[in-house]
Amino acid sequence: MFIHSVYFWLARPESDEDRAALKAGLESLRGVEAIQAAQIGTAAATRRPVIDHSYDFALLLTFADEATHDIYQEHPIHLAFVDSCKHLWNRVQIYDVEVK
Amino acid sequence: MFIHSVYFWLARPESDEDRAALKAGLESLRGVEAIQAAQIGTAAATRRPVIDHSYDFALLLTFADEATHDIYQEHPIHLAFVDSCKHLWNRVQIYDVEVK
Repeated sequence: MFIHSVYFWLARPESDEDRAALKAGLESLRGVEAIQAAQIGTAAATRRPVIDHSYDFALLLTFADEATHDIYQEHPIHLAFVDSCKHLWNRVQIYDVEVK
Repeated sequence: MFIHSVYFWLARPESDEDRAALKAGLESLRGVEAIQAAQIGTAAATRRPVIDHSYDFALLLTFADEATHDIYQEHPIHLAFVDSCKHLWNRVQIYDVEVK
C-alpha cells in the first residue's frame, strides 16, 4: 500500500472563491480510477506545538502500490487539476508513505 | 472522519536497534480499540522538491471523529508507547485532518 498525502496552503486564504475552486479541483481527482481511497479535509481543531494546522486543505490518496500512484501522477484528470488550480496555492507539502 | 498523521525522525537513525524498537512501539498502538484503521510505513522512493522523505516512520491513524481521537491520546497503550519510545525520536510532526 502506498499513501500520498498532500497539504495545500492557499495563496489567498482570504478568498472564499479560491477556497471553493481548490476544493472543487480536489474533488475532481476522485475521477482517477487508480485511486483506492481519497480523503479530502481541512485542519482539525487540535492544537499542540508538534501539530501543523496552518494548511488549508489536505488530500490523502491511497494506492495499491507506487506504480499505481505513478499512473495517477500522469493521469489527464490530475494534470488538468494541476494546470487549472496551481495558481491557487503558494505552498504544497507532500509525504509519500510505503506501508508494509 | 478524523485522520491523525504522525511523522517520526529517529534520534539515532544509524541504530537498527532503535529503529526496531520504534517499529515495535508503533505496532503496539494497534491495540487501541478506538482506532478505525492504522497504517505504519516508511518514506517511499518518490523524490521531488515538494516531497519530504527525510522521516523514518509514518503513523496514519483513522478515527470516527475528534472525540474518539482524544480517547486514543489518553489511552494507557498510547501513554506507555510515548513513555517507552520518546527517547528514540528527536522530531515528530503531526497533521490532524478533519475529513468532511
